[in-house]
Amino acid sequence: MSGDERRLVIFGGPGSRAVTATYAGAGTRVLGYLNDTMPAGSDVHGLPVLGGFADWPGQPADVQFLAPLHKVKQMPARAALVERLGVPDDRWATLVDPRTAIAPDVHIGFSSHVGAFAHIQPGSRLGRHVGVRGSVFIGHDCNIGDHVFLGAQAFCGGYARIGEGAHIGPCASIRENIAVGRFAVIGMGAVVVVDVPEYTIVAGNPARPIGEIAPLAGTEQSEV
Amino acid sequence: MSGDERRLVIFGGPGSRAVTATYAGAGTRVLGYLNDTMPAGSDVHGLPVLGGFADWPGQPADVQFLAPLHKVKQMPARAALVERLGVPDDRWATLVDPRTAIAPDVHIGFSSHVGAFAHIQPGSRLGRHVGVRGSVFIGHDCNIGDHVFLGAQAFCGGYARIGEGAHIGPCASIRENIAVGRFAVIGMGAVVVVDVPEYTIVAGNPARPIGEIAPLAGTEQSEV
Amino acid sequence: MSGDERRLVIFGGPGSRAVTATYAGAGTRVLGYLNDTMPAGSDVHGLPVLGGFADWPGQPADVQFLAPLHKVKQMPARAALVERLGVPDDRWATLVDPRTAIAPDVHIGFSSHVGAFAHIQPGSRLGRHVGVRGSVFIGHDCNIGDHVFLGAQAFCGGYARIGEGAHIGPCASIRENIAVGRFAVIGMGAVVVVDVPEYTIVAGNPARPIGEIAPLAGTEQSEV
Repeated sequence: MSGDERRLVIFGGPGSRAVTATYAGAGTRVLGYLNDTMPAGSDVHGLPVLGGFADWPGQPADVQFLAPLHKVKQMPARAALVERLGVPDDRWATLVDPRTAIAPDVHIGFSSHVGAFAHIQPGSRLGRHVGVRGSVFIGHDCNIGDHVFLGAQAFCGGYARIGEGAHIGPCASIRENIAVGRFAVIGMGAVVVVDVPEYTIVAGNPARPIGEIAPLAGTEQSEV
Repeated sequence: MSGDERRLVIFGGPGSRAVTATYAGAGTRVLGYLNDTMPAGSDVHGLPVLGGFADWPGQPADVQFLAPLHKVKQMPARAALVERLGVPDDRWATLVDPRTAIAPDVHIGFSSHVGAFAHIQPGSRLGRHVGVRGSVFIGHDCNIGDHVFLGAQAFCGGYARIGEGAHIGPCASIRENIAVGRFAVIGMGAVVVVDVPEYTIVAGNPARPIGEIAPLAGTEQSEV
Repeated sequence: MSGDERRLVIFGGPGSRAVTATYAGAGTRVLGYLNDTMPAGSDVHGLPVLGGFADWPGQPADVQFLAPLHKVKQMPARAALVERLGVPDDRWATLVDPRTAIAPDVHIGFSSHVGAFAHIQPGSRLGRHVGVRGSVFIGHDCNIGDHVFLGAQAFCGGYARIGEGAHIGPCASIRENIAVGRFAVIGMGAVVVVDVPEYTIVAGNPARPIGEIAPLAGTEQSEV
């Protein structure tokens, strides 16, 4: 409410509250959610739904937004959805937990979030709308594309390149110098030692292809 | 010794000191151990054995207790042992390392401990006598039963349900929405993507059954 | 520059800056690098190359050194190289991130480094020139030999013994009581449940031998 407090509105709902409740530190207050499947006024664990996605222009001018809408196997549609919202660049918040080890020269794009006890080593660049969950380790000189999701405890070795909208499951590990293609899905706990083509699902130790992502995957809008 | 200091006595011995030495923060002092296999007066790395398990009523009234007696494949007997001690609910301590990321609405039952750099996301509930070791990640809306043990770096996805006395090995990962049955054992590094029946041992990536736990497993009382 | 500030010079180069940039805390300043493949005066992300390895005696007497020269499959030669430098014991620095959970009785040898959010439990001993990266978990009563490298998020259970120069990949887990032989290599994400002989490479879940390290591996000096 005061001029020093950052005010956030989140595109999402119950599933997104994990991000906001644990990552938003002192000086940041979440006002509520924008959600297309729950009516305005609905309660999301103590915070209100303020309207639908299209209602963001009705928020006060000082409010910033976050869209942690990552969903496994639906990222092509989710990324397109976020891009279509039309929120100006300077209205997106970037949420970085203060309990992180991030080298000074790391670049983090807007609307990204980084959870507690995560590491990002020198020379790495993260795009826009990237989700980095708790205890993730990103090695030096990595390139993490827009809309990428890294689940809790995931690991990327040095010089790894993760393509736009790829979904790295929790506890997965990506060897140094590996390239993961756009919208690829790395299963929970997968150990990735060779490059992963775009739209490919891999799992196991070592990780092997087990399926593909349709280019329009996730076009149905589901609860988030 | 002062009125502001919490004083603890631990059911256990050498193996338990890892918990007390690293989790007990400022304002908490461990007086010693109760142990049925080492005589009173024995030294456990600088702290004394104060008596056997049955001697807890002899401790001063302000002393609180912790029973980190989890042992893989012996949890049916260990859980029964802890329940038989007869310690009143309000004499159990709960030990949470201050260097943790725990959402405000999380419930943690008494006599549980949570190690450094652990995460517990919104909406999750932990039972009594639960051991959560360092860097564990518990997702949102999980239900963790009494006497569960989660080894270091273990991961539980959102809405996971872990039954009473289950033992989740270090570095194991449990996919969201998965149910792990009572007294099941998840091997170190196992990647669990389907429900695990009670008393079942699983291991591997993906995890597969490799054995069973006898319902009376661990009835011999071994050093802890 | 002031008497209270610790000044470091690093044997290494671009790959080593991840260590220095993220582990060196307040009160420590890195002056630059000693490197045998880049000419003096070269820029390493804002810090200068000050000379070759043999030039260390030319540094001011208050300067301390660190040699994070660990490289997978080249550790026999790398360990020998570090030992040959002839730096006196009291000129080596030990670099421990303040955001760690290390039991009071842990011993860490000189020229070792420990990254953020790492755990070392009671009774464990680390040798000289050991690299412990971010979020590593070392259980109680472990014995970690000289020149060992533990990649990010690696796990060692209680009483594990890791031989000289062994390389434990990121996200690998070593079961309690396991012995890993000298110069063995544990692959990223490997789950080690049986002892590993010296000079042996293992990978997978469970880990199995996939190759060997030559006793003179890494004798060519490559960029670090």
